[in-house]
Order: sequence, then C-alpha cells, then structure tokens
Amino acid sequence: MDQGRSKRVMDNLRQMGLSQALFCDPLSIWYLTGYYTEPLERFLALYLSPSGSVLFANRLFPDATGAADRLVTFDDTEDPIPLVAANCDPNSELGVDKDLAARWLVPLMDSKAASGFRLASKAVDDARSIKDDREQGLMRQASLTNDLAMSWLASQVREGATELSIAEGLLGEYRSLGAQDHSFPPIVSYGAHAADPHHEPDQTPLAKGDMVLFDAGCKQDWYCSDMTRTFFTAEPTAHQLEVYDTVRRANEAAEKIVRPGVTFAQIDLTARKVIEDAGFGPYFTHRLGHQIGLTDHEPGDVSATHDEPVRPGQCFSIEPGIYLPNDMGVRIEDLVIVTENGCEVLNHYTHEPVVLDA
Amino acid sequence: MDQGRSKRVMDNLRQMGLSQALFCDPLSIWYLTGYYTEPLERFLALYLSPSGSVLFANRLFPDATGAADRLVTFDDTEDPIPLVAANCDPNSELGVDKDLAARWLVPLMDSKAASGFRLASKAVDDARSIKDDREQGLMRQASLTNDLAMSWLASQVREGATELSIAEGLLGEYRSLGAQDHSFPPIVSYGAHAADPHHEPDQTPLAKGDMVLFDAGCKQDWYCSDMTRTFFTAEPTAHQLEVYDTVRRANEAAEKIVRPGVTFAQIDLTARKVIEDAGFGPYFTHRLGHQIGLTDHEPGDVSATHDEPVRPGQCFSIEPGIYLPNDMGVRIEDLVIVTENGCEVLNHYTHEPVVLDA
Repeated sequence: MDQGRSKRVMDNLRQMGLSQALFCDPLSIWYLTGYYTEPLERFLALYLSPSGSVLFANRLFPDATGAADRLVTFDDTEDPIPLVAANCDPNSELGVDKDLAARWLVPLMDSKAASGFRLASKAVDDARSIKDDREQGLMRQASLTNDLAMSWLASQVREGATELSIAEGLLGEYRSLGAQDHSFPPIVSYGAHAADPHHEPDQTPLAKGDMVLFDAGCKQDWYCSDMTRTFFTAEPTAHQLEVYDTVRRANEAAEKIVRPGVTFAQIDLTARKVIEDAGFGPYFTHRLGHQIGLTDHEPGDVSATHDEPVRPGQCFSIEPGIYLPNDMGVRIEDLVIVTENGCEVLNHYTHEPVVLDA
Repeated sequence: MDQGRSKRVMDNLRQMGLSQALFCDPLSIWYLTGYYTEPLERFLALYLSPSGSVLFANRLFPDATGAADRLVTFDDTEDPIPLVAANCDPNSELGVDKDLAARWLVPLMDSKAASGFRLASKAVDDARSIKDDREQGLMRQASLTNDLAMSWLASQVREGATELSIAEGLLGEYRSLGAQDHSFPPIVSYGAHAADPHHEPDQTPLAKGDMVLFDAGCKQDWYCSDMTRTFFTAEPTAHQLEVYDTVRRANEAAEKIVRPGVTFAQIDLTARKVIEDAGFGPYFTHRLGHQIGLTDHEPGDVSATHDEPVRPGQCFSIEPGIYLPNDMGVRIEDLVIVTENGCEVLNHYTHEPVVLDA
C-alpha cells in the first residue's frame, strides 16, 4: 500500500460520511497498492476501512502477496461475493466504485453485506486528480513524447497515404520514442471526415489539398498524453483560415485564464465565447476538455456544468473544435497542469497554421 | 430490431418472471438492433418491455434512428438516468444487464425506477449462446481463417525471432485473410513461458529446441475464433511427448462425447480424467473451455461446476492444458459447435506433434 495515497482516500471517504469502501478499477488498485492486473470478467477488488486494506484476487492472477494488508484469494469455481460480504461491516454503508458491475453489486446487495450502498469513486478520483511532483514529471514526459510523435505524423502526410496506414504506423513510432502504448485509438481525419470529432481512420487516401486532423496520445510509464493538431496541405482559403484562427484563439484564451480558483466551467465558457462570437457556436459540439492521468479520460470534465474550481496539480485537456458537416473540422488540443499561479502547457507543437508539402 | 431475437429475449425474461429489462452490453444491443457503438464512459442502453423497445443514446454517438421502436437522446450536460426512470414501470422489477456499472445502477435504484432490481443478462446471453445458421457460418469462417493463421504462425518460428515480433505480425496476417481484428491479445510462449497459461509475449528470442505455444483468434464479420497449438523445434524428449500426448488425448476424448444432453461439466470432467489418470491432474489449472461468439469469452463456461446440458447451436472451446512450472506447457484448443447428434469441430489444423525447422 502507498500510505500517503491511501490516507488521502480514507480522509476523503470520511468527509463523505463513509467508513468502508470497495474499489475495483484496476488502475485505482494500482494507484493505491502498486499491484496491477487486468481482471477482465473475473473479480478483483480492494476493500478499505480504518482496520486496514483487503485485496480480493482470483488465484489465476499474478501473485498479489504484500499488495494490501490482507490478501483473500479464490478460484474460478468459487463465488467471491460471500468472501467480500464476510469482510464488510453489515451495519455501515459501503462505498462502491462507479465501475463495479451489476454482476457483483446486485449479489452484494442481496447478501446484505452493508446497511446501504453509495457511489464512492470520488474519494479515489479526487486523489488521482491531484498529481504529485513525480506524477507531473511523468505527464510532462508523456506529452514531450507526444510532441515528437506529432512531428512524425506530419512527416507521413503525402498524397495517396491512407488514414489507416498513418494511424497504424504510430504505435511503432511511440515505442521507438520510449512509450508503451496508445492512450486511445488515434484519430486521423482527412477533409470533411474531420467534421466528425470521433471519425475512425479508414482506407481513404489523401487527396492534394485535404486538411488533416491528428488526435493521438501515448501511455508512458502508466501516464497518458493526448493532443490534437490540424494541418493544411495547400494554401488555406480565407474560410479555412477563419475557422482555424477561431479555434486557435479559443484554445489560447482558455489556456490563458487557467489558475487555481477559476472553475472548469469558466474555462469552457471562455473558449466557447470566442467561437460563439465568431458565429460558429452551433458547430462546437462537445465539452472543452477532460482530466487525464492514468487514463485518457479521468473524471471531472472541463464543461459548462462543472462548477468546481481547478486546483494545483490537476491536469486536463483544452480542446476547442469547429465541425462543419460535409466541409471541414478543426481542433487544437493541449494538456495543461494547474500550477500555484497559472498553468503549464505540456504541449509545445506550434499553434501556427502549418502547410505540409504533401 | 431483429424481431426473432427480441422475441426470444422477451420469452426468456417472461420465464424469469420479468416484464422489463435494461441491457447495456454494446454487443447485446447490436445483436438485438443492428446498431453498434462503443459508448466508453457514456451511457447507452436498450430498454425492453411488452410495449416495445427504447434505445437511450448520447447525441455524440452515431445516429441510432430506427434501431429500436423509440429513441431517446441526450448530451453530455444531461443526466440520462431520469430519462430511463421515466420509461420504467416503477411497480415492477427491472431486469438489469450484468455489465451495468454502479455509476448508473445506484442512481437508478435511488430514483426508485422499479420495485426491485435483478440480474437479467441470462435472457440475452441464452439467446446469443444458440447460434442460428447464419451465425454458424460466420463462426466456421472465422475459424477457417484462424487455421490458416496458425500455419502462418508456424512459418514464423525461427531461432532468434522474439515472441513479441511474431505476435505483432499476426494482425497483418489476419487482415490479409479477411478478418478485421484479434478476438483477444495473442499468446506466444517459448519454453517454460508456456507454463503460465496467460503469458504475455515479450522480447525473448527463440532458442533452438524451445517448444512454442500459440493461442490466437480473430474477429471476422463480428464473430470470434480462438485456437491453440503447441509446437516442437527439436525432436521431443520422451517427457515432452508424454505431456503432449496426454493433452491431445484429453482434447479428443472431450470432443468425442459432445452431443445434446451431455452437460458442460461432463465434458470438462472427461478431459480432466485423462490428465488425472496420467498423473498430471494438479497441473491442469483452469476450466476446460468457454463459450464464444460475439466475444471471445461468452457466458456459460465448460467447467466442473456447470451442470447444464449443451444444446444444438452452442459453440465453445475445448482447451485442456498441462503446465509444469519452470519446465514446459502444452495446450491444444479447438472450437466446436453442438449439432443435433454430436458436434462439428471448427478447427482443422493437425493435433499430431509437429517439429518445426527453426
């Protein structure tokens, strides 16, 4: 167990009025214990209470001895739920992980393992949200790798190259730069494909003059990066430049106001106002950003409905976009870490419009 | 909506005493409606009741118009749970998908959307378990592709080739054979690595004489394949041959008894007895197999505790193994489909011991 992290989580639980909780997100378990396995459909959970931690793990998993104060194992022929229930205080509420599947939660409720069940992920999500110095260093490194990968992506743009061929080459490039994996499936969108913010790369070849949007990120030493840039392959038209410049100004206006005490909603609305004032409001169809860390999308988004103030150590994306159906799409995305009096932008790849020689 | 499939699911629900249910597994939704999207942390669910089907989908997803009798959409700023609750009959129990996450189930319970909540995945799992003719054809094709891929894997075995390099080349081979993706991350295990049934391929180079275990599968037109073969790269020792032959006899004894009415447990125990009689019982550390279809691991395993009889149209793996720590591991795995009076083995790659020229 990481004593500092588990104390922060227990403090958060206490503030929520909870004395026991069950977490099952494998990355939360790694964050608290240093033990990681991907349980798939099998059961893996960490129980926390003032009397200590208990890890429940299938014996098919890698050995978890020492990860928590106590280890309870079982095999595929055993039902783990009675083992969990036997550890719970039936007279207190149990906090449960938001990811706990009904297949486990419903029988836990039926066995009356606790006096009530309440979502408690916020206790660990809040701890994960505030990156310590070591975590900030890893976030910085993953984004540095991503800046270099963006240069590589730009170098791959040439007439006839398909979206899919560029996307599929990226993993090798990440690995050669020291990362282990993608943090999410990369997006490569040519021309009007970029009007769908979640377009999946396909066999479309690049046609001369297409705009090209890259949205990609890597996992390096557990921590994720995520950035977007949109390129030209011919001199942009006035219309294209107007859209691009609006997105760029929205990005930079938002990044400029990030500091402790400013709310996530204010940051979203600052970018949104730039886009609305330029007349493109209806075409910015998603939230401004999301927190990031052990996963690409960590809880607590940068959106108009998230009224909490940002705090030092939090890391999130600033990614305004304008999506014009059947025409074009532009998004410019950086990660930022909140500092004591502002923010550090983790991506250094230029925001200037770049015309690639395709 | 696929009327035949949704009728089977509604019939199953009725037999469970349920008149309404909420499914969220994206593949179950595809199975019933033909609509597929991967919702990640966002909400996607299909509500079924005698008065019709309702699909709940975030407006960021691809358009789902026409997929169900009624479509209810929302965006990231809206909480979908009150929309679901407003559709439920608060005076009846609600069947819920085993994959429904606590983040949705707990607020659904707190809003008293139904008089009770019960796991109901079995209603759709049971329908998915019995493959119709068209599905059987797709399972057959995916396994044919996998037989060909196994030949390719065997051709890659040469001194110095790393486990990872072979594993990473497989996706290209699958694609050239017409498949879309892996059905699970492939296993390539040299020598003693194969003693861990879930070994992840690493940078180990092949040493002359290493045994080589391949466990791989593809997804082709939605349906999954999965097979294992274990190869020699030098004349096997008597000890190696004894282990190999025991696993082979266990595999073939089990495949021979599969027919309607025989239970999953009997099939497991038939293979297990061969291995126990040869003195290797403690080294066969997992269930004999798992059902397969839209995912590699479908519910209802082939294990000593699963007492239900198999039924025509069910498809599952037969994969006995012997794992000798720090020494070697052998597994031989085929897929079978239950027929009216026996079974069809979907894999045709030989069970004979093969010595590769590495």
